[in-house]
Amino acid sequence: MTIDDVLNELRAKIADKLPKGITISGLEFEGPELVIYTTEPRAFADNGDIIRSLAKDLRKRIVVRPDPKMLLDAEQAIDKIKQIVPAESGLSDFYFDPDTGEVIIEAEKPGLVIGRHGSTLREITKHIGWTPKVVRTPPIESKTVKDIRQYLRTVKDDRKQILKTIGRKIHRPVSTKDQWIRVTTLGGCKEVGRSSFLLSTPETRILIDCGVNTGAESNGTPYLYVPEVSPLSSIDAVVITHAHLDHCGIVPLLFKYGYEGPIYATPPTRDLSALLQLDYIEVANREGKRPPYDSALIREALKRTITLNYGDVTDIAPDVRLTFYNSGHILGSAIAHFHIGEGLYNVAFTGDFKYEKSKLFDAAVNNFPRVETVIMESTYGGMHDMQPARREAEIEIQQVIKQTLARGGKVLIPTFAVGRSQEVMIVLEEAIRRGIIDNVPVYLDGMIWEATAIHTTYPEYLNVELQDMIFHKGQNPFLSPSFVQVDSPQKREKILADPSPCIVLATSGMMNGGPVMEYLKTYGHDRRNTLIFVGYQAEGTLGRRIQKGWNELPMSVGGKTEIMKINLQVTTVDGFSGHSDRRQLMEYVKRMDPRPERIITNHGDENKCLDLASSIYKKYKLETKSPMNLETIRLI
Amino acid sequence: MTIDDVLNELRAKIADKLPKGITISGLEFEGPELVIYTTEPRAFADNGDIIRSLAKDLRKRIVVRPDPKMLLDAEQAIDKIKQIVPAESGLSDFYFDPDTGEVIIEAEKPGLVIGRHGSTLREITKHIGWTPKVVRTPPIESKTVKDIRQYLRTVKDDRKQILKTIGRKIHRPVSTKDQWIRVTTLGGCKEVGRSSFLLSTPETRILIDCGVNTGAESNGTPYLYVPEVSPLSSIDAVVITHAHLDHCGIVPLLFKYGYEGPIYATPPTRDLSALLQLDYIEVANREGKRPPYDSALIREALKRTITLNYGDVTDIAPDVRLTFYNSGHILGSAIAHFHIGEGLYNVAFTGDFKYEKSKLFDAAVNNFPRVETVIMESTYGGMHDMQPARREAEIEIQQVIKQTLARGGKVLIPTFAVGRSQEVMIVLEEAIRRGIIDNVPVYLDGMIWEATAIHTTYPEYLNVELQDMIFHKGQNPFLSPSFVQVDSPQKREKILADPSPCIVLATSGMMNGGPVMEYLKTYGHDRRNTLIFVGYQAEGTLGRRIQKGWNELPMSVGGKTEIMKINLQVTTVDGFSGHSDRRQLMEYVKRMDPRPERIITNHGDENKCLDLASSIYKKYKLETKSPMNLETIRLI
Ligand SMILES: [Zn+2]
Ligand SMILES: [Zn+2]
Ligand SMILES: [Zn+2]
Ligand SMILES: [Zn+2]
Ligand SMILES: [Zn+2]
Repeated sequence: MTIDDVLNELRAKIADKLPKGITISGLEFEGPELVIYTTEPRAFADNGDIIRSLAKDLRKRIVVRPDPKMLLDAEQAIDKIKQIVPAESGLSDFYFDPDTGEVIIEAEKPGLVIGRHGSTLREITKHIGWTPKVVRTPPIESKTVKDIRQYLRTVKDDRKQILKTIGRKIHRPVSTKDQWIRVTTLGGCKEVGRSSFLLSTPETRILIDCGVNTGAESNGTPYLYVPEVSPLSSIDAVVITHAHLDHCGIVPLLFKYGYEGPIYATPPTRDLSALLQLDYIEVANREGKRPPYDSALIREALKRTITLNYGDVTDIAPDVRLTFYNSGHILGSAIAHFHIGEGLYNVAFTGDFKYEKSKLFDAAVNNFPRVETVIMESTYGGMHDMQPARREAEIEIQQVIKQTLARGGKVLIPTFAVGRSQEVMIVLEEAIRRGIIDNVPVYLDGMIWEATAIHTTYPEYLNVELQDMIFHKGQNPFLSPSFVQVDSPQKREKILADPSPCIVLATSGMMNGGPVMEYLKTYGHDRRNTLIFVGYQAEGTLGRRIQKGWNELPMSVGGKTEIMKINLQVTTVDGFSGHSDRRQLMEYVKRMDPRPERIITNHGDENKCLDLASSIYKKYKLETKSPMNLETIRLI
Repeated sequence: MTIDDVLNELRAKIADKLPKGITISGLEFEGPELVIYTTEPRAFADNGDIIRSLAKDLRKRIVVRPDPKMLLDAEQAIDKIKQIVPAESGLSDFYFDPDTGEVIIEAEKPGLVIGRHGSTLREITKHIGWTPKVVRTPPIESKTVKDIRQYLRTVKDDRKQILKTIGRKIHRPVSTKDQWIRVTTLGGCKEVGRSSFLLSTPETRILIDCGVNTGAESNGTPYLYVPEVSPLSSIDAVVITHAHLDHCGIVPLLFKYGYEGPIYATPPTRDLSALLQLDYIEVANREGKRPPYDSALIREALKRTITLNYGDVTDIAPDVRLTFYNSGHILGSAIAHFHIGEGLYNVAFTGDFKYEKSKLFDAAVNNFPRVETVIMESTYGGMHDMQPARREAEIEIQQVIKQTLARGGKVLIPTFAVGRSQEVMIVLEEAIRRGIIDNVPVYLDGMIWEATAIHTTYPEYLNVELQDMIFHKGQNPFLSPSFVQVDSPQKREKILADPSPCIVLATSGMMNGGPVMEYLKTYGHDRRNTLIFVGYQAEGTLGRRIQKGWNELPMSVGGKTEIMKINLQVTTVDGFSGHSDRRQLMEYVKRMDPRPERIITNHGDENKCLDLASSIYKKYKLETKSPMNLETIRLI
């Protein structure tokens, strides 16, 4: 049976189920979706249940698109949309895509454009022919998001062809063969950095994460030259759990070495990945190193990215369904759950996860329809890797800031742009709003502002309380006037020269470069000021040295190295980590529903991986493994 | 550096070390050997130490061959050889190969042609130019051996080119890369049959064994379609531990699917493999099944086979040295020991082994220069898999035969052609010679005679006592007049009609076909006769049914199935197994020198592999693993 036979068979089945008078003018796989073209989109729109019922019967994700000849002229369509949608929705932009028959509607309140159970959308469809897709008008404009959307519009023809090719590959008829499922470890085992796994069946090969250890002199990239992933063109899909470079830093390079398939990621992961990959190139250039790839390859990756929201059950291969679940680590971070065969086996890759509710995110999901094997991170898997509770950390940082401001000092917090920064921002906003700390400006320097803008683009990826504040109380803490973007060297100069108390969040998080260095140079001599570490400081970084108590630091000033004496207070506030601590890792497994059969530990130093595996085995009687890189484990 | 640079460098080094007056006219890699062509072969021959010293300095296997223009005319050369060699050596044939400059001399006593420390050979070389190679005149002529030698002569040009290609590949200069060693399980794990492993480094991929489970309906062949061994042309070498089909049955097929490299095996394994592979085809044809491959592919395998004797340390890849050690299982069976890198790591694959001296073979070797990981068989690895000692089995079979003959009965022993048959033959010969049992004829039917002929071709692969009997006492038990070959249906008819007492060894060993069936039909009704099982009877075979006590058997007679009633005595004599029993497996590990770090168990039912591994771990505190098929274990 060829793929065309499959489509013909589906077409007959669909025609059979449609009410009289609705006809199909075309049928095509586009990525994981089955697209029905019709000259009667209104009839579909009138029968909200048809698509749902077809999807259920055919077990496919179904999209209905108007036959191109049904589309209303763009100007008229905009007028019509404005008539249908309530004015409070804040319509801000429209983009018509003749290829997909879609119109992208930017609105401040997408919910009002969608309507109850999609009723307003259906109304729009009925009148304009075009299929409306609603995206939020970002409250803080993100250059990254804007650029990506613009780029994707320019390559829409290409992308349509790519999606068709991918779609036909996903839904190809398969020959019955042996039955086995294997996981090959390509990086990130008994180490942190360069995470990468291959999940394979007789039919399919899926690469999960493809990270880089940016700090490593050698062995910084996954083992992509081994036969298991050769040629790269034989890989069916790449799945990215989240945007940190140790999980996605090498993805653009895959396209240089022959990969041609899709990348699956949540929408925030797509955008944050592009931001961090571009920054990776820039940092390399700034440090005079050879950049790992150029931005053209990042665009190539974007062109082939298919975004999936949490909970979307999606065919990504003839025998594999992927579902992303919230992992609580950073914006859009996901646990990738694979359902293999029809009820044969289920395996979940946690990526990095936080099994505790934070100011930004809900706790990681550990409740799946089914799961037999879990591959989980072990960053804090050691016996004694306990962290204070989030609440304690919040109180502690407030206290330190309060005291510093009270004595006329400034607060400097080195952070990475994505994750920790936004977490601390929410804590500060709340403390200022409640009057716990003085209403001083909070300066955001480095990529923090841009990363925050991406957070405001995807509020549905934040936790329930934040969503409630933003959607129902109209209070978006990120929009607090306390936050001031440092968007030019001139502005930074002005801030550095200003003697009034303030709080500065600046990159990089480990003080090995970035704007934080400028603040340290100016604030470092004054003993009233405080430097607060909120994240892990790796061995060999300036941050680690200061944390250890060094107060005479070699600093590069105008090309020469000078010794700088620092007098400011130095404090570390633990508990803001985006990773589960030891207790949370253990609880995560203990409370997992259903109970898995096997746990594979990775993403941690060797002793952490082994220690966690051995404790899980002893306490919960589950089979555990801590593989090395380059091993293959057979799951079934 | 290219391979030609390597050769030029070697040439300079060799020229440097040679005494004045000896020159090199050519230098080439041929298979694992470095071949020096010279116009002064006599000078080399006069200086017995030159080659040994060069080999040691250059760490290469060195062969000196005369420059083609130095070779004496064949007729004259034969005359000269006859002059030099003592008449008692029993010269029987000569074959001159102008390509290699070699003359193959067949003699009944090769030792006399070789002389003390090779002195006679050197004398011959000096006078005729040709390099003499001595092979034994087989005391029983083996059609297999004769055909193989004849075939190899007809393809010598091809073979020379192949060896050159292989040689240049083995000695290719390598780029320094990552350092890792992996073993991938392709078959024969937690099962018996289709044994196959891949040993890989960043530089090299070596396939060890490639067997078939002839009894399996599906899953009878190793997983050769997985990416780890794709394409097959990327495999550097195939190493065969022994000739049983569960270790070599699929080898010829490799050449159909793109493999082009060498096969390494001992000389008896090469010949017995060809015999058993041909029989595999014939059995398939006889049973109306599609044969697995045709004989052309068996010849293709022979053409690319490089034989190595026990103890020959041989470069088979830039970073891998292979050495075969006696495994005591069947003629030529070997433990394959791999030395990887320069002192980096050592791994031994036992294949099937017997850790007990038998009538035919010495006990398996467990003493290696170095060894870190051992992959060992577990056929009898279960807690209770004890076998009687060999001596007890010998006494028991003698008793049963004695009693049967005493009451005027006949003895029927179903056996496989290779291994068990020859073991029983030696026991019978000794018993008859010593008068323990009557001097009755012992008929050998099926492939037993041919397999025995191959045993007599390679007496140096038998144990020390047998070699001593054959070489120094001139007593070859296989040549005993008691043994009578059944070489035609007419002869079998005559034997079946003869009422006098006798012993019959006939194939197949599990009574699922073969000439043994004819004997059963005739001897089955007489209660004075005895059927003796000396080997394992698999579930589902006729042998197993009879062993269980069935005495009404469905038999095919002239195309129809009839029920046959049998009255003969049925006995099982345990203890002739070619496999180590549980105690021997444990002792083998316990007494291994040096002590390995890790033991991987395979070649046994799941519970046997697990049971053996767990006992070794508990008793000897060694790391153990019992992988499934399709796993990859990283050794370093
Ligand atoms: Zn992360
Ligand atoms: Zn990570
Ligand atoms: Zn002479
Ligand atoms: Zn065997
Ligand atoms: Zn075997």
